[in-house]
Formats: sequence, C-alpha cells, structure tokens
Amino acid sequence: MATKLTALNLAAVKEAYTLIKPKIWKTPVYKSAILSHTISSAIFRKDNIGATGVPKINVFFKCENLQKTGSFKFRGASHFLARQNDRALRNGLVTYSTGNHGIALAQAAAYESEERGFPIPLTVIMSKSADRGKISMIEKLGATVSACYSTMEACAVQAEELQRKAGLTLVPTSGHCHVVLGQGTVMLEFQQQVAGLGEKPLDAVIVPIAGGALLAGTALVCQEASSRIDVFGAEPLEGGPSLLQGRQRGRRIDTLRPKKSTIADGLRCLVAKSNWDILRSKTHVRDVFPVADSEILTAMRLILEGTKQLVEPSAAVPLAALLFNKRLHSNLALRNGPLNVGIILSGGNTSVERLLSLFT
Amino acid sequence: MATKLTALNLAAVKEAYTLIKPKIWKTPVYKSAILSHTISSAIFRKDNIGATGVPKINVFFKCENLQKTGSFKFRGASHFLARQNDRALRNGLVTYSTGNHGIALAQAAAYESEERGFPIPLTVIMSKSADRGKISMIEKLGATVSACYSTMEACAVQAEELQRKAGLTLVPTSGHCHVVLGQGTVMLEFQQQVAGLGEKPLDAVIVPIAGGALLAGTALVCQEASSRIDVFGAEPLEGGPSLLQGRQRGRRIDTLRPKKSTIADGLRCLVAKSNWDILRSKTHVRDVFPVADSEILTAMRLILEGTKQLVEPSAAVPLAALLFNKRLHSNLALRNGPLNVGIILSGGNTSVERLLSLFT
Repeated sequence: MATKLTALNLAAVKEAYTLIKPKIWKTPVYKSAILSHTISSAIFRKDNIGATGVPKINVFFKCENLQKTGSFKFRGASHFLARQNDRALRNGLVTYSTGNHGIALAQAAAYESEERGFPIPLTVIMSKSADRGKISMIEKLGATVSACYSTMEACAVQAEELQRKAGLTLVPTSGHCHVVLGQGTVMLEFQQQVAGLGEKPLDAVIVPIAGGALLAGTALVCQEASSRIDVFGAEPLEGGPSLLQGRQRGRRIDTLRPKKSTIADGLRCLVAKSNWDILRSKTHVRDVFPVADSEILTAMRLILEGTKQLVEPSAAVPLAALLFNKRLHSNLALRNGPLNVGIILSGGNTSVERLLSLFT
Repeated sequence: MATKLTALNLAAVKEAYTLIKPKIWKTPVYKSAILSHTISSAIFRKDNIGATGVPKINVFFKCENLQKTGSFKFRGASHFLARQNDRALRNGLVTYSTGNHGIALAQAAAYESEERGFPIPLTVIMSKSADRGKISMIEKLGATVSACYSTMEACAVQAEELQRKAGLTLVPTSGHCHVVLGQGTVMLEFQQQVAGLGEKPLDAVIVPIAGGALLAGTALVCQEASSRIDVFGAEPLEGGPSLLQGRQRGRRIDTLRPKKSTIADGLRCLVAKSNWDILRSKTHVRDVFPVADSEILTAMRLILEGTKQLVEPSAAVPLAALLFNKRLHSNLALRNGPLNVGIILSGGNTSVERLLSLFT
C-alpha cells in the first residue's frame, strides 16, 4: 500500500482540493426565491413569509449531480488515486460499490492511466440488485464488473479476498482518509460559492449518509470553519445505513436492516467503520434524520420540477428530511430567520425508465 | 406607448444586457466529454473518435432552463419593461402566450412593480390547450389568465382588442425589438462563457424557433461577432412554426399547419412578422431544420440523462436537429473537427406528470 495516513482536518481537505482541483468540475450552486418560498411554506405553513416577503428558509443546492461521472464520488476516487504510487496502480485496483463509486473510480482510473502513461486494471464488485445503467457505464469506462452478490457485505468480503490473493489495491467506497478528504472538498467549494453569491454563510447543511465519507468530510470542513454551521445527516428509514440508531445505542450498527429495501439505491450500505468516530460525535454531526421512501419521492419531484435537476433518489434524501422531519423543523423554528440551509445533491445517475417506475 | 424603436444590432444587445444584467441569472454552460462522444458517435457512426480520442463534435449546452421563471423569456420581458415609462405600466399590460412568456412577464412585472413602487396590472391570454402547470404559475405570480381560445392567433386578436379598447400596453411574445434584444443576451453570455472555459469559439449554434425572437437575437449577436458562427434554427415538423417553408417560398407562413399538434407546446405559434426580415436572410440564419416529435423525445431523454437537466420538449428541438438532420450532418462532416457546437436549452417548465405522459 502506498497510502499514508493523513490527519483528518480542514487543512488536509484544503490540501486534497489543491490536488484534485484541475481534475474535477466546480459544480454550480442553485438558489431560487420561488423554491425557497415553496419549501418554507411547506414546512411552516402560515408563518412562512415575513412582513418583508422574505422566506424563513433560503435553500441552496450544491449540484454534485453535475460532477464528472454524475456524482461527488469522483472527488474521493480522484484523490485516492493521486496519492498512490505507480507500482500499486500497475498491479491493479479492486473495489465494491452500489454504483456511483464504481463509475467514479473507473473514470478517475482512466484519467490517471492517461496521465501516468500505463494501464490501470480495475475490478468492481457489485450486488445483484445494482442499477443496470450504472453497471453498463462502468463497463464502458473499461473496468471489469462482477455483479453476483446479494449484499454489499458479501461484495466487500470478495473485494478483500482479491486484495489478499491477487495483491490488488482495495479502494474503499467510503472508509479511507483519502476518500473522506476528497469528499470534503464539496463543502469547501459550497461555502466559497455561497460567499461568492454575496450571501451570508450557511446556517446548516444536510448531507445524505451512505458509507459516511461525504458526511464526515463535510463535518471536518464545518468543524473548523470560522462561522458555526450545523451539520445534519439524512438516511432512509429502511434498508439503508442506520447512523441514528447507532448513535442512540452508542455503537456502530454492522448489519443492514432487512425489512425492506429503500428506493435510495445509492444508500443501501453500512456506515464505514473508520468513519464512525467522526459520525458518532454530536460536535461533528449535530443530528441525523430518517426519511420514508414516500418522502424521498416528494423531494425528488420538487428537485426535478423546482431546480430542473435530475437527481437519483439517494440525492433527494436531505431535502426529504428538510421537508418532513419534525425534529429538524423545531430546531429551525427556534432560530431567527432568514436561515440559509445547504442541501448537497449528491448524484444524478438515474434514467427515464427509473423515473417512470418510481412515479407510476 | 413609451417604447422607442431601437437599431437591431450587437451594440443594442450589449446595451440591453447592461440594463437587465442585475435582474437576470447568468445561467451555466454545461459541457461533458462523455456526452460529446455519445452525440458524435450517434451522428457519425464509426468515425466519431479520432486517433487522439477527441470527439468530432464538442457540444455545449446553455442552460436557460435555469433562468428565472425557467426560461430565456425572462430576459426579453425584463428588457421590455425596463424600457417603459411609469404611465404605461400603471395603465396595465396585456399579452398572449403559450406559457413561458406569460410566466416570465408576470415575474418581471412583479419585480418592476416592487422597484417602481406601484402595482402593474397584467392580463395573459392563453389557448385552451396551454399547459395547466404554466397557467397556475402565472396566476400565482399575481396576473390574470384568460385561457379560452383555440389558437394563438385568436389569443393575439383578443390581446390587440384589449390594447385598443382598454388602453393596455401589449407585450408581444416575440415581435418587438426590445424583446429580440433581450433574448439576444443569451448568446452574448454563451460566447463569453465558452471563452471563459478556455475553449475555442463556437463554430455553430442551434436555436429553437417559436416567434423567432431568440433566433433573431442570436443572429444579431453572431452576425457581428469577430469569429464567424453558423446560426441554425430548429423547428417541429408539424404544428409549429414553418420558417423553412417560408424561406423556400420567399414569404412568411401566416397560418399554423393544422395536421397535428407537436409535443413542443412552447413552439405552437407563428414566426412574428417583425422578425421575418432577419429570419428569412441566409446571412443571418444559415439553415433551418425540421424535426419529428419522436426525435424530440430521443433528444429530451439524452438531455435529461446526459446533462441531468430537466427541459421541456421545445428545448430539446435543437439537439433533435443535431442528432437526426442529414443536411446538418453533411454540413458538419465537411469541416475539419473538432467542432464546437452550441445548443440553447430554452426552458424547463414541465412536470413529472408530463414526463410520464410523454415517455409511457
């Protein structure tokens, strides 16, 4: 392994940003007065609009669905590869993924291969239930896909075996400092862009939870920011990570709740072990909100029609929390408005067929 | 009438831009290597990728679906209102619209009313077949909608009657110099943004045709640009404007083709009389391409899945032309690549319901 363990803090995220900035896109931030009114009105009913016509909540969307490969995962993958030596990359990589991490890594490996001038073999282990469009995209980018396992845990076991037996470098979807630091660059940009719009800093940001790298990276950036931002996580009620339950019990949940599988396919996984220490801490992550699939659908529709952005169900989870979670509403209602709330639209890798099946 | 006739040229578009710049959004330009490869490959089959892996055509999308009110129409409406005196605005406005112009004018009137400190009454005459979502949005913005006419011509007649009898100021959807100059600012920004990306200037731009103000404004900007850009128009085969036929016959078509109504609802109207002189000229508009509804659907899907942008069917008409028109393909094939082609995504005012009805 050529990776070195790095301190997890704002300075390290800034260093990661310098490394990957030439490779990534600075994705736009979307803000709309009409949409902020609609959302404030949905949350607070009658008292949404003050005497001045200013909505209680101004919502800012960070459009990582427009990142290369259609999700923020490209940042972490690019950063991980930039930190590897030639020998590790020549030997080859293996990963396991619900989809977006696999696409991102395949694209990042293609770029890195072009830059270093030698091929970088990549195998992506996926579950049987993985989105077919995502599998096909990874294959088009030149990687080998093996999609015959029923759970992400089984995929992880298989990937670890390939690491041991074939000497491949395992690229975790979430549980690695280089991945966390890469994903943290989303929030670094988000803050800079909100300031660039002449707006006051965000009061809160809501982040979807899968393995937890995006949330952990966001927390690192906000922890040391000059202004205090509340970092919130949002997760599906069923079939996804259960950070909330873990925090309540004081230990990381290490089996997926089996009751039903959420429509948020990108979040059908466990919080990574190595992210647990950051994510369990209320100093880093103030609160975590669970959302139902029907709430995710409502949020997805509002994002599509209101921001004109195609997002996958996983990316609609934070807005679903903002729209429907009573505990979050109480938190926001107590403060003097207007409040600036950031929503990270994590990815847009879905299809017209998926939309049809979700909404009919 | 407080409006003064203005010269139609690049200088006048720049003047319009200075006036409306504080009111509009500078909408992003979207570019993706993967999508350019997909599109080049669809057009040129085998010879899409050169030895260097560079696609023959790089496609740039100007996202006016992200303009305030969801379409470029907000630019023309804002410019028209900025040019009116207080008396005209106090008396009130009337317009006719397939939807987007009505929404844009209602929002622009609301802003102008706030700025000038008095109410600006607005009546919008629409056809019976107008999109219900668009009607509802106009009403929410405080305007009065009358949607009981079967054709846009009947709507125009009714609006002109209100102009004569009630002394209202008629705000044409397309046929007015202030509207044309406002819409021309899209192309002004587009060129600046492509240069800002460090890219060579656009070789061609494809624009959807409704009343023709966007195409005329684009032509004005490109006519005098230092680098020569081919300006192309794209229109639905049936039930929309027939600029191509008009150009072939040497006279403006003044009745809508009745055979069937295109899914591109925003384009169900005639080219405005006052735009005809610009649009008939091959110096201004090099060629015009008709597209079938099935082609529009294919383009709409590619935009949604490829750029993650929700656009209405009308906005997919230029990409449909690029994907399917053989005459355009021959034109492009003759030139040395890579070519930079601009597509204006004119609007995004549609709904999940409309998507379901279009794609099932």
